[in-house]
Amino acid sequence: MTITVPATPTGSLGHAWRECVGTGRANLSLRHDFVVSAALAHDVIGFRHIRGHGLFSDDMGVLRESGGVRRYGFTYLDQVCDTYLGAGMRPVLELGFTPGLLASGTQTVFWWKGNITPPRDLGEWTGLVTAALRHLIARYGAAEVRGWPVEVWNEPNLATFWDADQATYFRLYDATARAVKAVDAALTVGGPATAPDAPEWVRAFGEHVLADDVPCDIITTHAYASGPAQHIPFGVYQTLRPPSHLLEQFALPRGLYAGTPLAGLPHWVTEFNTSYRPDNPIHDTAYNACYLAPVLAGGGAAADAFSYWTLCDVFEEENIPTALFHGGFGLLARHQLRKPTWHLYAFMARLGDEVLARGEDHLVTRHADGRLGLLAWQPLGGSAEGPYGSAPASHRLRLRLPVGACPRAAIVRHRVNEHAGNAWTLWRELGRPASPDSRTMELLYDAAEPAVEHRAADVDADGTLLLDLTLERHEITLVEVVPVVPTHHEGLDDTRLLGHEPSDDEGRR
Amino acid sequence: MTITVPATPTGSLGHAWRECVGTGRANLSLRHDFVVSAALAHDVIGFRHIRGHGLFSDDMGVLRESGGVRRYGFTYLDQVCDTYLGAGMRPVLELGFTPGLLASGTQTVFWWKGNITPPRDLGEWTGLVTAALRHLIARYGAAEVRGWPVEVWNEPNLATFWDADQATYFRLYDATARAVKAVDAALTVGGPATAPDAPEWVRAFGEHVLADDVPCDIITTHAYASGPAQHIPFGVYQTLRPPSHLLEQFALPRGLYAGTPLAGLPHWVTEFNTSYRPDNPIHDTAYNACYLAPVLAGGGAAADAFSYWTLCDVFEEENIPTALFHGGFGLLARHQLRKPTWHLYAFMARLGDEVLARGEDHLVTRHADGRLGLLAWQPLGGSAEGPYGSAPASHRLRLRLPVGACPRAAIVRHRVNEHAGNAWTLWRELGRPASPDSRTMELLYDAAEPAVEHRAADVDADGTLLLDLTLERHEITLVEVVPVVPTHHEGLDDTRLLGHEPSDDEGRR
Amino acid sequence: MTITVPATPTGSLGHAWRECVGTGRANLSLRHDFVVSAALAHDVIGFRHIRGHGLFSDDMGVLRESGGVRRYGFTYLDQVCDTYLGAGMRPVLELGFTPGLLASGTQTVFWWKGNITPPRDLGEWTGLVTAALRHLIARYGAAEVRGWPVEVWNEPNLATFWDADQATYFRLYDATARAVKAVDAALTVGGPATAPDAPEWVRAFGEHVLADDVPCDIITTHAYASGPAQHIPFGVYQTLRPPSHLLEQFALPRGLYAGTPLAGLPHWVTEFNTSYRPDNPIHDTAYNACYLAPVLAGGGAAADAFSYWTLCDVFEEENIPTALFHGGFGLLARHQLRKPTWHLYAFMARLGDEVLARGEDHLVTRHADGRLGLLAWQPLGGSAEGPYGSAPASHRLRLRLPVGACPRAAIVRHRVNEHAGNAWTLWRELGRPASPDSRTMELLYDAAEPAVEHRAADVDADGTLLLDLTLERHEITLVEVVPVVPTHHEGLDDTRLLGHEPSDDEGRR
Amino acid sequence: MTITVPATPTGSLGHAWRECVGTGRANLSLRHDFVVSAALAHDVIGFRHIRGHGLFSDDMGVLRESGGVRRYGFTYLDQVCDTYLGAGMRPVLELGFTPGLLASGTQTVFWWKGNITPPRDLGEWTGLVTAALRHLIARYGAAEVRGWPVEVWNEPNLATFWDADQATYFRLYDATARAVKAVDAALTVGGPATAPDAPEWVRAFGEHVLADDVPCDIITTHAYASGPAQHIPFGVYQTLRPPSHLLEQFALPRGLYAGTPLAGLPHWVTEFNTSYRPDNPIHDTAYNACYLAPVLAGGGAAADAFSYWTLCDVFEEENIPTALFHGGFGLLARHQLRKPTWHLYAFMARLGDEVLARGEDHLVTRHADGRLGLLAWQPLGGSAEGPYGSAPASHRLRLRLPVGACPRAAIVRHRVNEHAGNAWTLWRELGRPASPDSRTMELLYDAAEPAVEHRAADVDADGTLLLDLTLERHEITLVEVVPVVPTHHEGLDDTRLLGHEPSDDEGRR
Repeated sequence: MTITVPATPTGSLGHAWRECVGTGRANLSLRHDFVVSAALAHDVIGFRHIRGHGLFSDDMGVLRESGGVRRYGFTYLDQVCDTYLGAGMRPVLELGFTPGLLASGTQTVFWWKGNITPPRDLGEWTGLVTAALRHLIARYGAAEVRGWPVEVWNEPNLATFWDADQATYFRLYDATARAVKAVDAALTVGGPATAPDAPEWVRAFGEHVLADDVPCDIITTHAYASGPAQHIPFGVYQTLRPPSHLLEQFALPRGLYAGTPLAGLPHWVTEFNTSYRPDNPIHDTAYNACYLAPVLAGGGAAADAFSYWTLCDVFEEENIPTALFHGGFGLLARHQLRKPTWHLYAFMARLGDEVLARGEDHLVTRHADGRLGLLAWQPLGGSAEGPYGSAPASHRLRLRLPVGACPRAAIVRHRVNEHAGNAWTLWRELGRPASPDSRTMELLYDAAEPAVEHRAADVDADGTLLLDLTLERHEITLVEVVPVVPTHHEGLDDTRLLGHEPSDDEGRR
Repeated sequence: MTITVPATPTGSLGHAWRECVGTGRANLSLRHDFVVSAALAHDVIGFRHIRGHGLFSDDMGVLRESGGVRRYGFTYLDQVCDTYLGAGMRPVLELGFTPGLLASGTQTVFWWKGNITPPRDLGEWTGLVTAALRHLIARYGAAEVRGWPVEVWNEPNLATFWDADQATYFRLYDATARAVKAVDAALTVGGPATAPDAPEWVRAFGEHVLADDVPCDIITTHAYASGPAQHIPFGVYQTLRPPSHLLEQFALPRGLYAGTPLAGLPHWVTEFNTSYRPDNPIHDTAYNACYLAPVLAGGGAAADAFSYWTLCDVFEEENIPTALFHGGFGLLARHQLRKPTWHLYAFMARLGDEVLARGEDHLVTRHADGRLGLLAWQPLGGSAEGPYGSAPASHRLRLRLPVGACPRAAIVRHRVNEHAGNAWTLWRELGRPASPDSRTMELLYDAAEPAVEHRAADVDADGTLLLDLTLERHEITLVEVVPVVPTHHEGLDDTRLLGHEPSDDEGRR
Repeated sequence: MTITVPATPTGSLGHAWRECVGTGRANLSLRHDFVVSAALAHDVIGFRHIRGHGLFSDDMGVLRESGGVRRYGFTYLDQVCDTYLGAGMRPVLELGFTPGLLASGTQTVFWWKGNITPPRDLGEWTGLVTAALRHLIARYGAAEVRGWPVEVWNEPNLATFWDADQATYFRLYDATARAVKAVDAALTVGGPATAPDAPEWVRAFGEHVLADDVPCDIITTHAYASGPAQHIPFGVYQTLRPPSHLLEQFALPRGLYAGTPLAGLPHWVTEFNTSYRPDNPIHDTAYNACYLAPVLAGGGAAADAFSYWTLCDVFEEENIPTALFHGGFGLLARHQLRKPTWHLYAFMARLGDEVLARGEDHLVTRHADGRLGLLAWQPLGGSAEGPYGSAPASHRLRLRLPVGACPRAAIVRHRVNEHAGNAWTLWRELGRPASPDSRTMELLYDAAEPAVEHRAADVDADGTLLLDLTLERHEITLVEVVPVVPTHHEGLDDTRLLGHEPSDDEGRR
Repeated sequence: MTITVPATPTGSLGHAWRECVGTGRANLSLRHDFVVSAALAHDVIGFRHIRGHGLFSDDMGVLRESGGVRRYGFTYLDQVCDTYLGAGMRPVLELGFTPGLLASGTQTVFWWKGNITPPRDLGEWTGLVTAALRHLIARYGAAEVRGWPVEVWNEPNLATFWDADQATYFRLYDATARAVKAVDAALTVGGPATAPDAPEWVRAFGEHVLADDVPCDIITTHAYASGPAQHIPFGVYQTLRPPSHLLEQFALPRGLYAGTPLAGLPHWVTEFNTSYRPDNPIHDTAYNACYLAPVLAGGGAAADAFSYWTLCDVFEEENIPTALFHGGFGLLARHQLRKPTWHLYAFMARLGDEVLARGEDHLVTRHADGRLGLLAWQPLGGSAEGPYGSAPASHRLRLRLPVGACPRAAIVRHRVNEHAGNAWTLWRELGRPASPDSRTMELLYDAAEPAVEHRAADVDADGTLLLDLTLERHEITLVEVVPVVPTHHEGLDDTRLLGHEPSDDEGRR
């Protein structure tokens, strides 16, 4: 079956897919390898915001006491913000966790011990919030900071992250949101930053802010597709629900708030991924990229932003990784080694802004200069598929593309699958070296490069071209179609060039 | 037929193949794109010397006159040498052409008008030589400059380059060589820098320096394989003699001087390539790389250095190129776009230092850490082959490699042929755009990347591995074989990972 | 006498002073050292446009012939434009000189032989203009290229630059301007790019374009202050008229065209400097910077742009310089060595946008954040002053500055004079080494750094501060005044710190 | 009184002063700002080794447990070593503190909680040591790692750092040293890394290793000059003993071990500074630099290395600093802001290798090319001086320098004192802003630049030059004296140049 792609756009690609990306705790953004990852992401993908936990955790030094005197300290906060802005990204100010000096208890989350107990005194807490925001505005200007969404806490619906009940969260939210607006009414504040599968929480949050007239400018929630963790040492395996489930989670608040005054608010999915575990090898695979392709292609219809968790493997929630590949969330492994899902984002970034067609295995776009950019993938169903959720060995799709009035087109294809653009596969072949030396890294960098194919083709008289693509298992493919007007070169005759084959049709031109 | 590669080295790879590289006239080394090309070559290939024409041509400003006063000027000479040293290369000081103020006539060569007439006064000439060398020693130190071979003139056996006879060249040589040694007896000076097919010239030069006891520390000659130029506008086509012909040219002086006091002198081929024309499209092809592979693999046995003419397309002998690809000599096209022959050099640079085997289609080496590095190519015969010198569509070779006592090996292959690692092919498919915009350049960079394949294989009980390679037409291939000792990971079971295929044998480990 | 600076701005500083800068012929912009200079200028000064000669000269390769076929070539033109844009500057497209293939004669200007004869056939010329502009628009987009003023020829009123009469220039102008507008009516085109002291030419040009309804969007003229050249080998000396003379030249077209339809057109001084000679040592001196300070401070009232000729000493009009300092036009000497006039521009770039006061020896500005930025200089009169135009050994000025309601202020002063920020002086002390080695360059870089002084002062109760400045001979000074609100630090007592002096008043805080 | 400096060298400057530098805990070397500081130190100073605490602390992840399985992890260790080597420095492998999984207790030191309890099981500990060293050798090669001294623990003579007695340390040392040598007998191992004022400990250590024939290749001790800490919030004040006291500490082991088999061992002072507190403002002052000048100038006679504690303010022992300047150990404050003591090191790095004279206020050296390099300082006595240890307002010294047979010399002086090269002074004038914005940082960078003065002088007929220097309070000065042979320039006459003053003697040349 051949799908005919219309020449008239059906919409705009937009930026929801790269509006935001996640990262490890704020202090890790001070790391050199993070800085390099962020610069690479800026050049290749162009994320617009970034969000991590722990802005107020003790390793950020925002509140210190010495000789009975307390002092706010924004040394590291400034460095973190400088780093983000230097990489072209604005921070999402996720406020948390509780500084030890303000905490009501000692309960913590993660290896790095984020304090998850409510502030002992909301006045002390809002004092910190107020001081931090005023400092940031003094340093970066109000116009800039107004573009930084403020999010109150992280996943308060989980006991892992919030050692208190919903009512206590709402009190925290209210005090914080009001303090934010008191600093500058044009700042953007929101929540509830809930973990997945919590529609009642999201609904209750909406009812609460409406009932009490609490400031709320943005709704934030999280989305993951994975089932329970099956542990092995230093790792877990999990099942996955189908990709459509992620899109449904993206769309949840719009459904819940339809018809209320909250209906028009921006909705950001401030975390999403397949698995919520930082040690599930799925994140390192082509399967992950292929599974998420329809989510990136279609998510913009469901949310204003959806933020991949996370940019890179500079991350320590479970502890310090002992091996190069360890199932980390990152688009980039350590040493800037690109994973298949990085390529998914890089492919998206090379698409045009006009959307011509979107289907279950493809997204066709056009650039302002007439080039077509096409993303294709093998549709995956998560665990619903055969044993181990495996997919067929290949997937074929045929598209009739509108190239326009042009005799020829050049077609360039980039492939990522179980073999191509897949350093993880080579790493396994190399015996899974924990900390590869520079010579081995060189091989891995080579293997991480997507395979490239190219050819020229005649455009049909009606200005269309039939593209017949066969994808390998778990493949994502980027195809760029360039209308070609050959340059005239008098006397040129490739058949006179040594080594020419008469069948090379380019020689005629 | 399978070739068994022995585990005992037969020799060392050495550096003759990268001892030197050619470049356009000295003034062009001031260009920004040249600087970038040189840095890239340093990082990837590691050339040790560099040689271009025109150190004394008027656009270098080495001699000026104003108000009746003459002054030497070394501003640009210093910048050129700084550039070379900054890229890890030492200059070969090819002395020429004649500054206008010293010339006996107005005859020039090239679009950039190098004056090819003998100096009117050898004393003025040696005055310049002496001043320049003294200045360089003051600036860079004698120890450094002693590593810079001084070559007297370029191709004096051709009327194109030397508007005088052999005896006049010998007088120039004698005066110059003696002036060089008078500055510092430990400097290295030599000639005759002859164009190919001039055995009588080379012989006469040897007899001359011996007869008159003229200083000569190094012998330099050139080698090209091309026949007469068949012109079209902005280009030429030519036939090529087989690669062995180049190796014979490399070996020429050793044969001619055998048994004389010159026999032990280093011999540098200070220029070589397939075609001697800067507008023959052959330089842009995979054919060129494939044809030269046995020359690079074997040339070290015939000469102490053989210098590819040239590093990059920052070059203006025929005039200023009007198109990105134009048959230029460069390993790199403009904008650092890598041609197939660049990859040949890059592949050589990834080989080990121990040579295990060398054959008509392969070179097998080993690194100190046990990895094997193997270069393979399809043997080409120049114009001797069928119509247009074309080769078969594929070439197969089988090698039994000594991997050592290790259960498994990872095999990584890099391929360059008519399609892979070949931006020129895509450029033709794109209609040969003269000056591509940045979006098109991005596609060309992608196409210039060699194709990468990788797999794991069991090593046989005797520590060997059969490598069965099929090369496409005009292909050069780099294969790296890494002995593998798998890391143990308790509980690891790739079959539990979503998307796994039971046939993926890496999963067992 | 003390000048009281008002707290209310009198105007905006604007960008006329950095709207444009000059550079050597276009081909030199391909040089590596030019690229580095341009990047430095972008970071420190922020020029917005750049203009050089020779876009169409033969070393740019815009028109070539081979085998009877002519071809336009935009390889270098693209590289030049890429370079400018990469440094944040847009080109001024000065169209000239005549390509050899189109020229009506062989008369040339400069060492680099720009052909100054009119095109033999205006159709061929406009063909080239049309092709070049279309190519640039295809590559950079019409929106971008519309910001690049097109200027027809250079100084046609001088026989040195135009081997024909005024009427012939007008014909060239008319054909060119119409061709430009035919490509895109929104492009900006203008002239007459006249050398100084040519009011009749400027007037005639205006009358001509009005009479014949020729497109003209911008008026361009040049301004220099120097008298006749007194030659020595490799250099010249000249007298200078006072700085006010330059400002009068800037203002000339506005006066001439007042009341005509041309009155509202933007006027760009596309070249200005003290001396018009590239080998007058005046360009290397503090005198040059000090002389030009009132021109930069006040020029914006007289013209929309005034373009210093030139950015750097990568310049070859008189030939290739034989020494580091040689009287070149550059703000930067070779190797990015900053001259005093560079510092004048750098000081201007650190001023605020609000102008509070402008006088014969000062310009006082304020930044949005309340800091004051003040440029002061010793007024110079050109040759009108005593023997050799020398100025008094010092100059004093007193300003009462409006700091605002703040107890203290920090005052940071940067000085450049005959000693400070003056590598040229050290270079003379070092014996004028022609091509200094890297160790000597290090000393010169140190000497090029402006002297910095700083102190704290009490602000008077009325929010003002008396600044009493004494400048050395030929000094330019930047003063930054920062209102200070001290941070409280409990227990802090500098008198308890080892080495403290009780008189250090900072210790009290 | 004038000191006559002889023309014959008395010795070589050597590298003891830059053989090593200290840094914060290993994990902090992963920070971006550390990487930038290290690169700057490499370029300017050229430290050869670097040493920090906490290689085995839990934030380095060297030992992890999951699902009952233990695994070594060298991810971060590799990154830290890569960083050091990338900055041209080799690590000193200070082994410690105890990983939580191996510790016998929970006692910790510092805000970052280094575990100071002995390993529960020495076999587990040496297992870690052995694994780490084997890994490093596999990764970097034995030849490289043999250049990395291994030091056992830090300051075991203090209860703060070692929660056990001397005998327990000796057991730790013995087991560790033997494990190190078992990995590779050519590795370098040593101790006892004692805090100052512990001669009995050092003596006992020597007796112990000799008595029990324990491997020991290097002796390490620490030296500080400060008295007890007088606390204020976020800071301390302390007295200092005179600089000679530091030199005596350096020399201690040589005295103690004289006549024993340990006498010939290299002795490294692996930590020294004025104050041992990371919050004593003395570290930010010119006093600190001036006080340490004789220590750097003379320390090489007393020890083979003395390692300034520390390179930069990326340091967290006391907690996270709340202000830019906070009395941190660093030569560099945050954002690479150079402190006076940085300049002391930078001045040392510009001296020549031949020492001509060394005195209480000067060190005179000569470079291979004949230039003289001279460091001068005001002698300080620590707290022994008047109130607050303050020194006179100025210090004068006169040296007759041997310049050689040359008519003239250029003299370039760099000054750092309470005002010049002193961003800390400006920072106080600015009101001590905790986290300055980029505009304020720009002012601070300017203020951190040493003041530069230069002049030419006639050399006396005997080839000497009298240098009469007056230093301001707490000043260190670098003077470079360059013999000058003026270049001849026919017709040059500075008196013809506008703005010239007849008294400018350079004009005569």
